[in-house]
Formats: sequence, structure tokens, C-alpha cells
Amino acid sequence: MTVREGIHQRRSIRRYADRPVEEEQIDLLLEAAMAAPSACDCRPWEFIVVRDPARLAALAGISPYSQMAAHCSVAIVPCAVPERQAICPGFFPQDCGAMIQNIWLQATELGLGMVWCGIHPIKELEERMAGLLETPEGVVPFALLCIGYPAEQPAPRNRFEQDRIHREQW
Amino acid sequence: MTVREGIHQRRSIRRYADRPVEEEQIDLLLEAAMAAPSACDCRPWEFIVVRDPARLAALAGISPYSQMAAHCSVAIVPCAVPERQAICPGFFPQDCGAMIQNIWLQATELGLGMVWCGIHPIKELEERMAGLLETPEGVVPFALLCIGYPAEQPAPRNRFEQDRIHREQW
Repeated sequence: MTVREGIHQRRSIRRYADRPVEEEQIDLLLEAAMAAPSACDCRPWEFIVVRDPARLAALAGISPYSQMAAHCSVAIVPCAVPERQAICPGFFPQDCGAMIQNIWLQATELGLGMVWCGIHPIKELEERMAGLLETPEGVVPFALLCIGYPAEQPAPRNRFEQDRIHREQW
Repeated sequence: MTVREGIHQRRSIRRYADRPVEEEQIDLLLEAAMAAPSACDCRPWEFIVVRDPARLAALAGISPYSQMAAHCSVAIVPCAVPERQAICPGFFPQDCGAMIQNIWLQATELGLGMVWCGIHPIKELEERMAGLLETPEGVVPFALLCIGYPAEQPAPRNRFEQDRIHREQW
């Protein structure tokens, strides 16, 4: 799959086939994640890989929008560590956005389906996730990525809008 | 180029050849940008494409870390519009991170070099960019992306760190 195909074929997948994601595929997703850029190369991230069905069910319960976690094969929870960015504070959300996009595009190429459930900056969700995953002080559960072989194949979307483009100035 | 190759070959390129980037390539970069995910599909972004050498030189002057803007063929300045996210506030930085990563990976596939200069959340840089690009109130110049055909070919980096990975919980 070319880069361009991956970018344009990526969709949110919330229904998963009854087929486990291989550990080798999860390794490739984490390699893609850590290949992402970050401000001052601070790499302000850690990863929790969840496969236990009971824990996945618990993650599904944190919000009405995370119910698909109960049915995915694996969840990756990227966590941010803001204090690692002491030399360029405040950049961790955009860094984590780029990092998650790497995971999502790699998942698309591997034929995996994924959905990105936002956690940060919603404090209530961060706290529920921290409780379930026993993250220490200073570590921010950033997102909940539910991953599995897809049981739905939505068509690519076209989000292009010409009027969002300005030339030389606003 | 496969998705995986794009993800792992991407590097910051700060020296550019004396060859203009074709408008068709810029179109592909903007298409990639707008194919990115965003919280609640709010698409909280706009784009300013800068090619005028005098304006590129002015952008280069906003910080000691943006000097390569004077020598690139084209700069793309993604801007955030936080008020478009009224239904899910606060997600625009991570959305813009994913969007910029799409641009960077597409640039890599096209054989273009790029560097991502952070602007938001540094208020002083946001204000200098806003002044130069005449952005209205409520629009946040988010980053400065300098793009050109590369005049350097740094080797891929390996940023993988096994100890960043936790299983089931922290």
C-alpha cells in the first residue's frame, strides 16, 4: 500500500472480526508509533498494550463512546509524559497526535481496523483510565486505540475543501 | 513507497535544492492534510501556502529555529480554528498533529524534504506569524512547514525503545 493510499483509505473501524491480532502486528504498530517526530525529539510517550478481555471490557465502560473496546482484539493506550518536555513545554498533544496517526496508517496498511477514542484533555476520562491502568502521577492516559481485524469496510471519505486554502496570506 | 517505509524514512530536512516544488505536489500535500482525522470530525484547520521569497524570508525571521524558511520552495502554515470544536473543545492540537504528520509522510513519498517548526503553543511566535500572514482573531498559526526538494539525505533513525511498552497495566 502506498503512503497516499494509506492516508486516503484510513477510516474509523468500530466492528471487529473474531480473529486475534498477531503479536508481530502489534510490534509493527509500536515501531511506527515510536518513529514519530516530537518537539526537541523529547518523545513524550509511553504505551500500554491491553489484551485481557476483562480489562478491555473495563476500558469500554469509561464512556459511551468507548464501547467498542469490549470487542476489539487489542487496545493500545498511548500515555503522555509532559515533564519529559521541560525544554519545550506544551507540545505533547501535537506530538501524540502525530504518533497516533503513524499507528493508524500502519494499521491500515496491515489490514487492521482501528478507532481513536479521545481521552486527553477530558480530565474525567484521564482519571478513569489512570485508575484502570494504574498509571503513576505525571503520566497522562492520552487516547484509547481499539484495534482488530475489521468486520466492516466503509468506503474512503473525501474531506477535501478548496476554500480552506489561502495563498501568501489569509 | 509503502506506508511503513514512509513512516520510517521520514526525517527533518533543512537544506533544499534549487528546484521549485510543483503546484501539483503541493495539491497532494494539502489533500493528505485534509484526509486526517479530527475529534468529532470538526476539521479545525485552514492552510496558508507561501511561495513569495520576500514573505518566506520574513517567516524565516520569526525565530532562530525557522531560518530554513528563507531557502525552501514553499511553506505551508497550518492554522487552527479552535472555535470550530465547540462540541469537543481542546482537541485541536492533537488533531493538527495528526494532520501535519499526514503532510510529512506524503511529502516523504513524493521525494520532498520537510521540517516542522513548532509555533503553537508559544504565544510570541503565534503573534509574529499572525502579523506576517494577517490571520484574523480566532485563527491560530499552528506550525511552519518548510518544504523543498532535499539537498541532504540523512539516514533513517531508529527511535524504538522497548522499555516504553507496558503490558495490561503500567
